[in-house]
Amino acid sequence: MRVATFRVGGERRVGIVDSERQTISPFDLPIDQAAEGVLALIGRAGRPALLSPIALSEVDLEAPIPRPRRNIFCVGKNYFDHAHEFSKSGFDSSAAQGAVPKEPIIFSKVPETVVPAGARVMIDRSVSSAIDYEAELAVIIGKGGRGIAKADALDHVWGYTIVNDVTARDLQGRYSQWLIGKSQDGFCPMGPWAVTRDELDVSNTAIRCWVNGELRQDSNTGLLIFDIPTIVSTISAGVTLQPGDVIATGTPAGVGIGYTPPKYLVPGDVVRVEIAGIGVLENAFAEWRA
Amino acid sequence: MRVATFRVGGERRVGIVDSERQTISPFDLPIDQAAEGVLALIGRAGRPALLSPIALSEVDLEAPIPRPRRNIFCVGKNYFDHAHEFSKSGFDSSAAQGAVPKEPIIFSKVPETVVPAGARVMIDRSVSSAIDYEAELAVIIGKGGRGIAKADALDHVWGYTIVNDVTARDLQGRYSQWLIGKSQDGFCPMGPWAVTRDELDVSNTAIRCWVNGELRQDSNTGLLIFDIPTIVSTISAGVTLQPGDVIATGTPAGVGIGYTPPKYLVPGDVVRVEIAGIGVLENAFAEWRA
Repeated sequence: MRVATFRVGGERRVGIVDSERQTISPFDLPIDQAAEGVLALIGRAGRPALLSPIALSEVDLEAPIPRPRRNIFCVGKNYFDHAHEFSKSGFDSSAAQGAVPKEPIIFSKVPETVVPAGARVMIDRSVSSAIDYEAELAVIIGKGGRGIAKADALDHVWGYTIVNDVTARDLQGRYSQWLIGKSQDGFCPMGPWAVTRDELDVSNTAIRCWVNGELRQDSNTGLLIFDIPTIVSTISAGVTLQPGDVIATGTPAGVGIGYTPPKYLVPGDVVRVEIAGIGVLENAFAEWRA
Repeated sequence: MRVATFRVGGERRVGIVDSERQTISPFDLPIDQAAEGVLALIGRAGRPALLSPIALSEVDLEAPIPRPRRNIFCVGKNYFDHAHEFSKSGFDSSAAQGAVPKEPIIFSKVPETVVPAGARVMIDRSVSSAIDYEAELAVIIGKGGRGIAKADALDHVWGYTIVNDVTARDLQGRYSQWLIGKSQDGFCPMGPWAVTRDELDVSNTAIRCWVNGELRQDSNTGLLIFDIPTIVSTISAGVTLQPGDVIATGTPAGVGIGYTPPKYLVPGDVVRVEIAGIGVLENAFAEWRA
């Protein structure tokens, strides 16, 4: 099931996408519940009834979870080849502990970073001059819990979506902890929709990223250093996971900082992230105007 | 004005504390607004009417903001003497950049870490064997904004409270980024109440912490390396601050890790944090039981 959050007739709705027919069938949900996007379906007994389908071309897609209830959990340096390229960049405050982490590196992005597919991401040159993209598979937690065993972890997953973990590299280095460099306004494009966990074999799913049509990242989620059960188990050992939590699982090699000289994003660039079985998340970058 | 969130007759209320009379006068607020605690007053035009005072002894205090709307911002190594003691501990993933940070180190704690004064904080020895206290002044943002100048920063502050930024030192080191070590369930005692900004001269306010009656931390918020205007300006440069955001400003020397051997917390310990002009935040630590 592909579930999208969208806007039609001035109201936010949640519905099932039919990619063949290019339609979306809204769930029959009260407005205040639909306002939470996909969160409205999580932890709910039974699926709401469906209303008549609408052409996808007639709706505006929003991020599947327009406003997560708390910061997004993110995993750093979670593909070998990216761990090496980032470790050499000079911006990696964790490099002293080795290029490849022995345990998952977990940090967060504020919920207000989330923007939908198609939204422009603003570059404020007065704040950062080193803005980078990171194509990532994101996990959406369905059932919360503490002390979740690896063997049970996937039972706690509701589904998946795509995020671009946009990063201000200079701020990531300057402030040592990564929160600020990762949490700049609009720095978490998410979408185009979410898929339920039955739709994806995360042990073998292609993930790719293009900038202005040039293929930059080309990997597979099967190459994660710390797989999803390990990440869920690590966080939940002492931090109770909540239904609706979002966990971005890390990016493969090919980010801008991995090139010599670095290929940072500039206004006019278009970043396209594709994860097989989910879809395409594409966002243009533009000059910030106050 | 001292504003407390409390429970009386099974309902959550927000009210003004009269420390001389030892009473609290609830604001006349709908239940769903009072459920947000002090957040119900922030960004609101005018002060709600007051109901009749209740004896403080008849209510149960809750954290002033029982559930912040997003992760709590925290500043690391923000007093010189603590920066040195932590840098020497072996758990400081930022030590390669020098003991004393050149820029604020900013990380977060999940909102669900918040517990009130008097609540027991649970120690789960299967997760961490190095649990430490950190007495801190916390800022509550009243007016949000982006690109807030230092000169205007205090206009964006609604008030202040006390937090104990409880930390699992082993996890803080193991995961390199501090989120997990700082976000363990129950690891942010907050209270006993909040005070509006007119009540406190943060350039000269005593902050002290005792463990089982032994004075461990004894400093002054005037000794912050990065003062509150600098912190507000740094975060808001590219991360829009929201009304109700909480920013913990850092802890002075005297935490458990600063001693040789370290004085970690064990079940039965009682940590008491006092900030002059606010009050006392006291919490006992107990053994975790699933």
